[in-house]
Amino acid sequence: MMMDFESFFKNELDGLHQEGRYRVFADLARHRGEFPRATRHTAEGTQEVTVWCSNDYLGMGQSPVVTEAMKRAIDECGAGAGGTRNISGTNHYHVLLERELADLHGKEAALLFTSGYVSNWAALGTLCSKIPGIIVFSDAGNHASMIEGIRHSKCERVIFKHNSVADLEAKLAAADPRAPKIIAFESVYSMDGDIAPIKEFCDLADKYGAMTYLDEVHAVGMYGPRGGGIAEREGLMHRLTVIEGTLGKAFGVMGGYITGSTALCDFVRSFASGFIFTTALPPALAAGALASIRHLKESQVERFAHQERVRRLRSLLDQRGIPHMVNPSHIVPVMVGDAAKCKWISDLLLDNFGVYVQPINYPTVPKKTERLRITPTPLHSDADIDHLVGALHSLWSRCALARAVA
Amino acid sequence: MMMDFESFFKNELDGLHQEGRYRVFADLARHRGEFPRATRHTAEGTQEVTVWCSNDYLGMGQSPVVTEAMKRAIDECGAGAGGTRNISGTNHYHVLLERELADLHGKEAALLFTSGYVSNWAALGTLCSKIPGIIVFSDAGNHASMIEGIRHSKCERVIFKHNSVADLEAKLAAADPRAPKIIAFESVYSMDGDIAPIKEFCDLADKYGAMTYLDEVHAVGMYGPRGGGIAEREGLMHRLTVIEGTLGKAFGVMGGYITGSTALCDFVRSFASGFIFTTALPPALAAGALASIRHLKESQVERFAHQERVRRLRSLLDQRGIPHMVNPSHIVPVMVGDAAKCKWISDLLLDNFGVYVQPINYPTVPKKTERLRITPTPLHSDADIDHLVGALHSLWSRCALARAVA
Ligand SMILES: Cc1ncc(COP(=O)(O)O)c(C=O)c1O
Ligand SMILES: Cc1ncc(COP(=O)(O)O)c(C=O)c1O
Repeated sequence: MMMDFESFFKNELDGLHQEGRYRVFADLARHRGEFPRATRHTAEGTQEVTVWCSNDYLGMGQSPVVTEAMKRAIDECGAGAGGTRNISGTNHYHVLLERELADLHGKEAALLFTSGYVSNWAALGTLCSKIPGIIVFSDAGNHASMIEGIRHSKCERVIFKHNSVADLEAKLAAADPRAPKIIAFESVYSMDGDIAPIKEFCDLADKYGAMTYLDEVHAVGMYGPRGGGIAEREGLMHRLTVIEGTLGKAFGVMGGYITGSTALCDFVRSFASGFIFTTALPPALAAGALASIRHLKESQVERFAHQERVRRLRSLLDQRGIPHMVNPSHIVPVMVGDAAKCKWISDLLLDNFGVYVQPINYPTVPKKTERLRITPTPLHSDADIDHLVGALHSLWSRCALARAVA
Repeated sequence: MMMDFESFFKNELDGLHQEGRYRVFADLARHRGEFPRATRHTAEGTQEVTVWCSNDYLGMGQSPVVTEAMKRAIDECGAGAGGTRNISGTNHYHVLLERELADLHGKEAALLFTSGYVSNWAALGTLCSKIPGIIVFSDAGNHASMIEGIRHSKCERVIFKHNSVADLEAKLAAADPRAPKIIAFESVYSMDGDIAPIKEFCDLADKYGAMTYLDEVHAVGMYGPRGGGIAEREGLMHRLTVIEGTLGKAFGVMGGYITGSTALCDFVRSFASGFIFTTALPPALAAGALASIRHLKESQVERFAHQERVRRLRSLLDQRGIPHMVNPSHIVPVMVGDAAKCKWISDLLLDNFGVYVQPINYPTVPKKTERLRITPTPLHSDADIDHLVGALHSLWSRCALARAVA
């Protein structure tokens, strides 16, 4: 019997439907100058919505600083890069952007990738596969892209308890003292919004002779006096071997990068398949990211407004007893704990209130921790926040959802 | 003894230098409206060069059709998508582009990725890991991105001789008849420019009940009456399970995709880590690619001019006895067969003649097949071609390089 592939695919998709975790993408038209407002396209027509789950955390994606830089670069250089970085695809904007990123993180060098995902996958994949005998110590909460990079390398991997200094130390102590080691973790974890004990991990790295690899994807642009991330805010950048980041979230564009020593970046540049064998970022994306980073190195307005919006939302949620996870970052997870219910609340928010918050289900978060992940930006007004909290309050009242205990 | 990571990296890089395959990127400023002309930045200053190794094969990267569509989309929607496809990042341009791509290849559906590399890695990785017991039959010449996807899946893998129908058949016949199977190959191979026997491979797929996965990265836009690739030209699109392509070469922008049945695309969409956990393409890239594809569906001018330029270059090379690999595509490999010599010729072309052709060395091609890979575009003039061939002729005369035998 030959396999019927179509039926196989359909069966697997049915399984997702049954578990309530089949994903339906909201089809949005963002409008520059009106973010967080967007137009949602549906089979029945269009609807105006307020986006409450974007990772364009600071609204830089619609800032004229960025959009004008992109348009100028298009006029100057055209659309695409026209090749891989090695084969005619390196544009002067890539070179300038790599310099800017190295400076942002106080490192000798930087290396651009097509996305943050690819930067983690390719950099960790290369470091862990090319350094003979290396053991990677990976935080249990690490992002899929880091996990895939480590998996790719086939090196020995030790998972330590999320953000646990004690567990990491125990595992470092138990490993062969002569083996090269790398500790891979994030600063702000995107789903719970908690922050790693970076200093303590660096102390352990020193003690056990390990490299450190820090993903600052959900922190760059937003923390530190120049937007260098949590490590900048805490004066720790120089203690990390690699700082990785994205150009697609707070910087508002797309792309990813690592920063580190000249030799390390040159090494990854020379050996990483995911860097070598792919078309380079369009010059306009590099130019837009460059403008965004330069702006956020100087300007504190966006960062202050961002933190203030987050505080305001949290205090209104508290007043109404809507349960949200406490954390020291800008991410506001409103916990639901059930995939179907989470999707159902999100549908009601969208259809009845014009509030768009995507339900976050497995595999993005563990089962039973399904949530609404709310991300306030400097561009959400008081009225927007009031409307959101009012909508949540009305659903919580109607649907007998658990309240936070005072 | 703790490992000295810096020395390790430096040592490895020294090895590349010694083998003559350390890569130095040409730092270029492309000028819209003047391609293939570009400005090269060096430590000593700038130099005007003619690019002869771009994968912007048709010059669409500077076409106002594309650049104006991108600028309009930036004005409309801003810079980045602001999220993953699932979490607020799906823009109406993504939806329109996926429909256009499905139509281009005569398929029910399409799925966008951030690059062609990621589309191969994520789609093959998902199909091969999720279909229980699947065996992948992979052409020996397949691109790094396909190899990485297959490797990721950890499924059983059988490599067949490059473009060999006999070898593929022997290997299919030897495999467990009950195991699900997938045949993965490319249409135009980018380094030799040869083309797969697509029909024969599809016949084998039918006979042995295998899926087919075709990478048309170096053919989309350029072959077939609507730019659907080699499979379109040969009337074979309906026989392929998956057709994969890029938006970063002939279409002149950036991004990748697969097309296939609705269930298959939905399956990959639902399970591929490399699709799910990454920021979506900026709306402007989707809009630019959409405009490019629509234009090339109608217009034959670019395709005709492209093929004519290729013929002209080949005939002038033949007149001067410069050895180039014969193939049925648009890629003109001038063989050198030695890494250091290849780099040296390329340096002389650049410094003395303003001709930029990147040397292609291992691991992009096997050792001893190092080459100059020349890609004429419709925008290279007669004078450009004369200048290039003259430059090669003068180097071949000076340096006692092997001539083609008449
Ligand atoms: C922690 C973390 N790292 C990396 C990435 C990938 O970055 P990008 O969206 O630029 O691919 C993400 C999310 O997308 C993330 O949450
Ligand atoms: C055959 C083949 N497939 C896929 C890719 C990757 O496409 P992209 O450049 O869009 O990542 C390339 C080259 O870059 C290629 O040559």
